[in-house]
Amino acid sequence: MNRLIYEECGVFGAWMETPTAVPLTLFGLIALQHRGQESAGFACVQVDSISHKRGMGLVDDAFRGLDLDAYASHGAIGHVRYSTSGGSINANIQPLVFSGRLGPIALAHNGNLVNAAVIRNQLEQQGSIFQTTTDSEVIAHLLARSTTSDLDGALVSALGQVRGAYALVMLTPERLLAVRDPYGVRPLVLGKADRGWVVASETCALDTVGAVFEREVEPGEMISISDQGVESMPLFPARQSAFCIFEYIYFARPDSEFAGRNVHRVRRAMGRKLAEEAPCDADIVTGVPDSSLSAAAGYAEASGLPYETGLIRNRYLGRTFIRPNPEQRDQGVALKLNPIRGVVENKRVVLVDDSIVRGTTSKRIVKMLRNAGAKEVHVRIASPPVRHGCGLGIDTRDELIAQRMSPEEIGKHIAADSIAFLSSKSTVAATGLPRKSMCMGCFDGSHPVKGEEF
Amino acid sequence: MNRLIYEECGVFGAWMETPTAVPLTLFGLIALQHRGQESAGFACVQVDSISHKRGMGLVDDAFRGLDLDAYASHGAIGHVRYSTSGGSINANIQPLVFSGRLGPIALAHNGNLVNAAVIRNQLEQQGSIFQTTTDSEVIAHLLARSTTSDLDGALVSALGQVRGAYALVMLTPERLLAVRDPYGVRPLVLGKADRGWVVASETCALDTVGAVFEREVEPGEMISISDQGVESMPLFPARQSAFCIFEYIYFARPDSEFAGRNVHRVRRAMGRKLAEEAPCDADIVTGVPDSSLSAAAGYAEASGLPYETGLIRNRYLGRTFIRPNPEQRDQGVALKLNPIRGVVENKRVVLVDDSIVRGTTSKRIVKMLRNAGAKEVHVRIASPPVRHGCGLGIDTRDELIAQRMSPEEIGKHIAADSIAFLSSKSTVAATGLPRKSMCMGCFDGSHPVKGEEF
Amino acid sequence: MNRLIYEECGVFGAWMETPTAVPLTLFGLIALQHRGQESAGFACVQVDSISHKRGMGLVDDAFRGLDLDAYASHGAIGHVRYSTSGGSINANIQPLVFSGRLGPIALAHNGNLVNAAVIRNQLEQQGSIFQTTTDSEVIAHLLARSTTSDLDGALVSALGQVRGAYALVMLTPERLLAVRDPYGVRPLVLGKADRGWVVASETCALDTVGAVFEREVEPGEMISISDQGVESMPLFPARQSAFCIFEYIYFARPDSEFAGRNVHRVRRAMGRKLAEEAPCDADIVTGVPDSSLSAAAGYAEASGLPYETGLIRNRYLGRTFIRPNPEQRDQGVALKLNPIRGVVENKRVVLVDDSIVRGTTSKRIVKMLRNAGAKEVHVRIASPPVRHGCGLGIDTRDELIAQRMSPEEIGKHIAADSIAFLSSKSTVAATGLPRKSMCMGCFDGSHPVKGEEF
Amino acid sequence: MNRLIYEECGVFGAWMETPTAVPLTLFGLIALQHRGQESAGFACVQVDSISHKRGMGLVDDAFRGLDLDAYASHGAIGHVRYSTSGGSINANIQPLVFSGRLGPIALAHNGNLVNAAVIRNQLEQQGSIFQTTTDSEVIAHLLARSTTSDLDGALVSALGQVRGAYALVMLTPERLLAVRDPYGVRPLVLGKADRGWVVASETCALDTVGAVFEREVEPGEMISISDQGVESMPLFPARQSAFCIFEYIYFARPDSEFAGRNVHRVRRAMGRKLAEEAPCDADIVTGVPDSSLSAAAGYAEASGLPYETGLIRNRYLGRTFIRPNPEQRDQGVALKLNPIRGVVENKRVVLVDDSIVRGTTSKRIVKMLRNAGAKEVHVRIASPPVRHGCGLGIDTRDELIAQRMSPEEIGKHIAADSIAFLSSKSTVAATGLPRKSMCMGCFDGSHPVKGEEF
Repeated sequence: MNRLIYEECGVFGAWMETPTAVPLTLFGLIALQHRGQESAGFACVQVDSISHKRGMGLVDDAFRGLDLDAYASHGAIGHVRYSTSGGSINANIQPLVFSGRLGPIALAHNGNLVNAAVIRNQLEQQGSIFQTTTDSEVIAHLLARSTTSDLDGALVSALGQVRGAYALVMLTPERLLAVRDPYGVRPLVLGKADRGWVVASETCALDTVGAVFEREVEPGEMISISDQGVESMPLFPARQSAFCIFEYIYFARPDSEFAGRNVHRVRRAMGRKLAEEAPCDADIVTGVPDSSLSAAAGYAEASGLPYETGLIRNRYLGRTFIRPNPEQRDQGVALKLNPIRGVVENKRVVLVDDSIVRGTTSKRIVKMLRNAGAKEVHVRIASPPVRHGCGLGIDTRDELIAQRMSPEEIGKHIAADSIAFLSSKSTVAATGLPRKSMCMGCFDGSHPVKGEEF
Repeated sequence: MNRLIYEECGVFGAWMETPTAVPLTLFGLIALQHRGQESAGFACVQVDSISHKRGMGLVDDAFRGLDLDAYASHGAIGHVRYSTSGGSINANIQPLVFSGRLGPIALAHNGNLVNAAVIRNQLEQQGSIFQTTTDSEVIAHLLARSTTSDLDGALVSALGQVRGAYALVMLTPERLLAVRDPYGVRPLVLGKADRGWVVASETCALDTVGAVFEREVEPGEMISISDQGVESMPLFPARQSAFCIFEYIYFARPDSEFAGRNVHRVRRAMGRKLAEEAPCDADIVTGVPDSSLSAAAGYAEASGLPYETGLIRNRYLGRTFIRPNPEQRDQGVALKLNPIRGVVENKRVVLVDDSIVRGTTSKRIVKMLRNAGAKEVHVRIASPPVRHGCGLGIDTRDELIAQRMSPEEIGKHIAADSIAFLSSKSTVAATGLPRKSMCMGCFDGSHPVKGEEF
Repeated sequence: MNRLIYEECGVFGAWMETPTAVPLTLFGLIALQHRGQESAGFACVQVDSISHKRGMGLVDDAFRGLDLDAYASHGAIGHVRYSTSGGSINANIQPLVFSGRLGPIALAHNGNLVNAAVIRNQLEQQGSIFQTTTDSEVIAHLLARSTTSDLDGALVSALGQVRGAYALVMLTPERLLAVRDPYGVRPLVLGKADRGWVVASETCALDTVGAVFEREVEPGEMISISDQGVESMPLFPARQSAFCIFEYIYFARPDSEFAGRNVHRVRRAMGRKLAEEAPCDADIVTGVPDSSLSAAAGYAEASGLPYETGLIRNRYLGRTFIRPNPEQRDQGVALKLNPIRGVVENKRVVLVDDSIVRGTTSKRIVKMLRNAGAKEVHVRIASPPVRHGCGLGIDTRDELIAQRMSPEEIGKHIAADSIAFLSSKSTVAATGLPRKSMCMGCFDGSHPVKGEEF
Repeated sequence: MNRLIYEECGVFGAWMETPTAVPLTLFGLIALQHRGQESAGFACVQVDSISHKRGMGLVDDAFRGLDLDAYASHGAIGHVRYSTSGGSINANIQPLVFSGRLGPIALAHNGNLVNAAVIRNQLEQQGSIFQTTTDSEVIAHLLARSTTSDLDGALVSALGQVRGAYALVMLTPERLLAVRDPYGVRPLVLGKADRGWVVASETCALDTVGAVFEREVEPGEMISISDQGVESMPLFPARQSAFCIFEYIYFARPDSEFAGRNVHRVRRAMGRKLAEEAPCDADIVTGVPDSSLSAAAGYAEASGLPYETGLIRNRYLGRTFIRPNPEQRDQGVALKLNPIRGVVENKRVVLVDDSIVRGTTSKRIVKMLRNAGAKEVHVRIASPPVRHGCGLGIDTRDELIAQRMSPEEIGKHIAADSIAFLSSKSTVAATGLPRKSMCMGCFDGSHPVKGEEF
């Protein structure tokens, strides 16, 4: 699955007794790096004000040479960002740090608001100016324009006006706040560190910084952390949870857990169910590294077919600026993935992938396997066809192949010998969660919130 | 297994009809990046001279912002380098480019010479100066001091004086040369590109640049590539091959092939044999990512135990400068590996690793798994204990734990519930190659060449 | 005179028939680099939107590696910034680029508003958020909050509310605007380029880009440049001009002209008058490079004493990160200035400087000259004592030595054999302009606008 | 005068009781930055070995982010390099650090050897390899190949074979050496620091680091500095000194002194003599900044004409990558120099320059002055016509305009109203030194050593 079509982000926050919040935040961001590699930023409390530092690239690039001593702080938040093409500008790097009626505030946001454009337009008519193109700046303005006198009230007022997905961490000189939208579309978890508290998009970040998972931030809940401890404040009445199922399918790191379900194990279950629904007369099962390996192992397990490593991914490719041009591609230059000929040659291969969005990568991999000698390539997708755009995460600027082709046509298009998608029902079943607790709008159009942008 | 103890390198060369040798070389080096991440360099023909560019870090770092147009060339060689601690200096970055009686020459070297210090001392007494601390500079001097009038003769003379491991690629304005020592300790392969020829340390680099594997450079052979085509010249009579078995065990990328044996499949066979030799009453099998996953899968397969992903490795950690300090480590900060609690909790785990050198990493992982709830951790090493230093690749500056401890003591030291190593015999058997065709000196001290440095 | 106490800035704008506005703007900023070395930025029209790029350091540092082809544009503005200590943060780099009711706008500002804090506070109470600590953001908010429907009207409304100094260049997709406050405190000039128009803080930037000086932007005037040509719009009725006399004394480049007076010649005249007012029985006259050389030459000329180069300034020191520590300073390490012993030895030296603010630099230079053998050092300052802080340019965070010491005490403090300052009257006379046309508030407290911050 | 035609270099060395040799060396290099801006390097003693660091650009660029604590050392040498075009490669950055029979040695060299190519060829025939294209590497080889057992003897042997100009500083773990060729072509001075000794190309570097000038290194002398103190060793019998007169004319910083003559004052004397030899009926005298200002002041003084600042040089242009293209130049874009119209308009201008090499810059400046309104431009050059190439410093790859044109023709070529050069005799007289003590080969071809390369 090609990452380019997703708008992901990772957020992290730490409130510590010791002045170690910034290094902890950087460690946390490194653990969440898979959620965004385009830019990184952090903000931290310095006496009564908030300092920040932001940069392009991986956490390591953005903060290379950082003088950590200059950022000794008890409270910090951070953000890693992945954005699609055009929007890749410096100004959009989070956290957003602003100052207004409520004092200095830093805000890091994972998610998308479906009515951001509408509100922004209204705010502009009322005289607001925007210095970024992020949804997050809309929230900042709404906070500042709220007439209530405290931040908690302003948050109720501001977030009451936006619709969509948000997992927010915010920082003031006195508090670290973590807020999740009433649907709980994007994940946000609370952990107990050695001498403080941390919040993060995924539990893997808690593990990485040595914090113990405490609980998820509830949909509609705000958790407020200060030197006085942790307080829970329900900002909004509980709605039907609509957790994005793509967190299980693709976004999250396999070692993370949501709702007590380990992501790797859910993916494995998806693979098993896929084997049951779409068995295949083949010799081996292989997965597209890295996101599909869990599902491929599950497929192998359930099908009884041997699981084999048929494709190798270059581990050092993250930011390589030296890219093959189209002519070089035609000559076979392929930096990212390489098939193991000894494994796939003369084999009927089941190729498991987590999802198909545009189909271009799948097509290339099928061809690659055939060139390496595979006799047959049967594509099995461990989720349903992605047919619907989404204002909450999946970018619809790119064409969705399943919008204009049936599964059979897709199979033909990518030159697979056969193709099958996991059913919605089994996808849900693999999570072990009730169907209605998750958003599956990209499969069936049933988004919890609908906006102008769909 | 901790990489820090190895001196690896990767070499690549291209001789093309089109002026595309430099980008191809960079692609090749990216494919060989696992063999060295400390520095990278390339040299290329420009009319009658040889230009070069070298830098610290990954290929991407070393050549960021490179103006490829300024390096349009028909012939190029490249090198990626991994060195231990102290030797990490700019001057040592390869290729070495020098000019002497034989004109301008660039040289990239993978391997270690056991008599380099002795020869260097002799050369110094004869008035040579050294500007690096690499073995490669010794070869350069011997070439220049040879009294024969051509490069081919000089190579016979120079390489006739050195003992040890070398896979060399060399570049002159007229030719690309590839030479392998008479034992064939380090790998070197020849491939046919679309409109030219390439040589590389591993076949994965051929695949990556779209070249087709032609054959290995034979031990003692020199392959000379020019506009007139490819010529083979036996520099030295065939000796008993002594291919480093650690290339199969750990060094090489799983999708590479040596002697027709795919590395991944050899590792898998090692894992299977390990299961036979050292079965275990356990619930799951897991491997240390990434180098041990093939062996772990083999162990699972042969043992009938389920293979599970119990540990996740951070994919973005390569060069992270932000590292936990000891205090942070004690507080549980661990950026590199994270166990999946949902997988290992309450389980008796077989932990498969490719090798143990110092034991520190193994100890940390066993503890990590226990903290994540594993009931038992049984360590299985898919190769024999490393008991002997090696002048051909393994650095003995670090203490080898197996030199001073029995397997049982190692198991105790790392707090494993049980431990077992694969026997030498089975290690050999897994490769499918004759015992005597490989160097296994690190296990039994039987290096093909012995030097002052052992 | 120590630059550290000044808040300077340089602005530039270009509106061209050809897509060359960005390189011209960069050339212009390089010519204005003396007005600010901390950061640089530019914004340019790209179809209907405005792109920008900003960075720390000199123009060359900030835009190193810039792909000019990606910024082909007909309209651009730029800014170089010098800020005092604490405020040196990325977020403050100009131009400010924002979007609101009036569409996308870029704004670059030289000057200071005396009521910025008050307005900012009001705006915050009304729900505005601030992402920088610059005065310029106040203007942006006022523009957006104006109820008039066009930018011209909004400018009248917005700028009608602020008091202080501003030379603004603004950019919209359709126009380049240049506005100067009703007092004309900061300079702003219009020039005719080969195929377009440019505006700049100083005429030296016009010369540098090959543009011909057209005229100054008048106090209170807005000049609007579009594809339809140049239009003048009086935004505010003409007030008494109050051009900052420090532009003549120190800020501007000697080759610039204001009100038809060349800066170098004005400084020379100041030096001549200083010689008349405060003659000195000495052997030679020397100046502190570079800003005082013109005045020193004038002093020499009028006094009949020989002008000598007694101090040499290191031309490469701009950004040197390697600085002597206090201990090294005590040992005599002095990177910036060096006396010429052969010139000053056994001489009675008249040392001419443009101004004294804190006195630390003067003290060091006097000591330096004595160490080099000067028998006597007579300090002559080519402007009156700076006794008053200024909300329009001079930062009062640093203590002004003339606020607490008489000239005689200053002389003693810096260990000069004698000291004298140019009278206000002669300072004015040197410019050839009426006293009332200039702001001399730093000398006598008579600022044209007074604010809370004085 | 256009710098591009010169091969200059600056060297510095420090041997201290405290571990401060590296920062002192960096300060020294900054003071010598005018002698070379292309690259910089230093080497320092670390226990028994020599570490080094080298980089492209100014001292500040080359060592940005340097961890000075990692280079605590009692002994260090450094080098700044200016090279012509093609030779601008990393490998050539000095100091050269090499190891051979005599142990580790670092070498920094200012000067040119006229028989370097011949010796290099011989050395190559004898089996030496070269990794740079510098003359310095020839010296390194000769040192290593000497059969004497100590460095002092080896130096006599090695330097006895080379002919040409050299001011060398060398570093071993035990000593700092300073050697000057028997003609003393390039300068080298010794200074006493607070707790140690320093050597440098110019006295301005002594001043900058707070060291006191002790004496010049004599032609043919070696000064050896160790923990035991300073020793002088005559390597070669005293020959007729042949100090490069261009050090006085252009190379050196005005505050430096050679043979007790301050450079600025010598230049001033040249200007005075020029006024006597070539008076001019004009209104003002102006100089080309910065190198010609001293001579221009002297001309004014002697002629009685007023000295005026007619041209301003951009102080921030050193490394600006943003350069006008030819088309932009035609449109008048000129970043480096700008005339002051108010000074030159309607004036008959005497333009004093230190020398003319190719004539292109002079031509451009004359045109610039005319465009700024100068009625007449009379060019006066404060040195004789440069008619002869030089293997000791002046690069003859560029065409010398005086080789093919008479002064009158040059004047016509650059469109001057009149032109005159200072006579050789007066040039000598201005230095106050005997004619025969200086090399004036570029004027009359009488180089002290002649080589194949002339």
